[in-house]
Amino acid sequence: MSLEVMNVSKYYKDKTALNQATVTFKPNTIYGLLGRNGAGKSTLLNIIANRSIPSEGSVDLNSTSVLNNEVLLNQIYLMSEDNLFPSSMKIKDMFRISEGFYGSFDWDFAKKMADSFELNTKQTFKKLSTGYRSIAKLITALCVPCDYIFLDEPVLGLDATHRELFYTFLIETYEERNRTFVISTHLIEEIATLLEHVVIIEQGEVKVDQETESLLRQHFALSGPKNEVLDFASQYTVIGSESLGDYCTAYLSGDMPNSVPNSLSIQPINLQQYFVQLTKRK
Amino acid sequence: MSLEVMNVSKYYKDKTALNQATVTFKPNTIYGLLGRNGAGKSTLLNIIANRSIPSEGSVDLNSTSVLNNEVLLNQIYLMSEDNLFPSSMKIKDMFRISEGFYGSFDWDFAKKMADSFELNTKQTFKKLSTGYRSIAKLITALCVPCDYIFLDEPVLGLDATHRELFYTFLIETYEERNRTFVISTHLIEEIATLLEHVVIIEQGEVKVDQETESLLRQHFALSGPKNEVLDFASQYTVIGSESLGDYCTAYLSGDMPNSVPNSLSIQPINLQQYFVQLTKRK
Repeated sequence: MSLEVMNVSKYYKDKTALNQATVTFKPNTIYGLLGRNGAGKSTLLNIIANRSIPSEGSVDLNSTSVLNNEVLLNQIYLMSEDNLFPSSMKIKDMFRISEGFYGSFDWDFAKKMADSFELNTKQTFKKLSTGYRSIAKLITALCVPCDYIFLDEPVLGLDATHRELFYTFLIETYEERNRTFVISTHLIEEIATLLEHVVIIEQGEVKVDQETESLLRQHFALSGPKNEVLDFASQYTVIGSESLGDYCTAYLSGDMPNSVPNSLSIQPINLQQYFVQLTKRK
Repeated sequence: MSLEVMNVSKYYKDKTALNQATVTFKPNTIYGLLGRNGAGKSTLLNIIANRSIPSEGSVDLNSTSVLNNEVLLNQIYLMSEDNLFPSSMKIKDMFRISEGFYGSFDWDFAKKMADSFELNTKQTFKKLSTGYRSIAKLITALCVPCDYIFLDEPVLGLDATHRELFYTFLIETYEERNRTFVISTHLIEEIATLLEHVVIIEQGEVKVDQETESLLRQHFALSGPKNEVLDFASQYTVIGSESLGDYCTAYLSGDMPNSVPNSLSIQPINLQQYFVQLTKRK
């Protein structure tokens, strides 16, 4: 019961927002959906959740198109910048309506989260600060019974302590009931350890679709005098490089060598470094 | 010509958002305005910019109240979540209107920024992604001629590369023309080196108002076996602590000692650590 995005394109008058995007989201996996500003992430998420119609291609769940299929769409939840409820609605009523719409709601977990975040659920949405609006939406997303939960910038406006708290709740609810989370965020470093699988979109195209662990195992950084680095790097695919005077660091794709010449050093790279190098624009 | 917030309070029916907040923003200084979600930062900024009326207290610029004083308010610019223009307006028209309202506009710098961020200024605001909306607002904020620029969550939705680019432009424009920037953000670590002065608000009250350098010089972390740490810490003010089994780290206020017993270790702390410890809630 995978969710398959197949050759999805979205054209606007003056722009191609998505170009033949193909990616499969497997059940019970935490995905990172990464991309630069304007890369097409939100466009893709809106198409998956049936809020936007693709110009080409299709989104299937369990081998059936989700397009206007209410039963299948009921398995897909998208938390995004858009607020789907009237802003004068109280938070607890947002929860009630979500329960009605999706069939059930994890009230115990919602109460636990609201208490920890000190969210007053009798408040109306419009009276909340940016951070607390995100928190109200996050609680909803983690308490609906859907199998595919998409979170577009879930920690927007959250302070450091609240971000940490959210990551902890995410792990807790995931361990209690496996389902798929697809998290789109610009704060890559702090969420990297949660991501089992990474999808990277750049300029409307899916550039990377790989398990996080194997991705990081297959990339490393090589530093040293420029000439020697370039020489050694020639046997690898170079995804990016940085220079300071004669000193250079190259980011390479391939198995990390067991040894390098004394003048060079090798280091593993983290997900944020990999992402920044891969998505640099000229 | 300082901007003085004097005993400002803001009461809502069921909540005190600000309680006797007093703080002075000096000319030509980069401030960090830090606080947890819901601490009262945005309330304070909205009062300073005359978008909200305080229940008590006043905001003076050059010793004159800014309340409904258009000449003085023209020196204060607030970039916030609110979009003050019709969302169907083109970005370049947002720039033009800002020029008309504030008297001038740094078109060269705006063009340079738009080019670097790859922002198409012929686009309408509503067609932009979250990140690009922030970018359009940032460019406006850095190009108006005001002496006091308040930025509420300026990098909301910006990817890592764009955040870096923004910090670089901020330094560039600040060096070219000194003025006061007050930056409210939850991404403390990456902006800490830019902040000359730090103001921390917690539960509606100003808790810290100090130069960044002297603040960090007067705090440090002490780690080691719990009993010994607590014993040594008794001569300092403890702002927070963390324990793992018998091992403990205490965050202390005071001059860092020249030496500690062998079983203990001391380390400087960074701004994010200090903030997290100071604003922990029980």
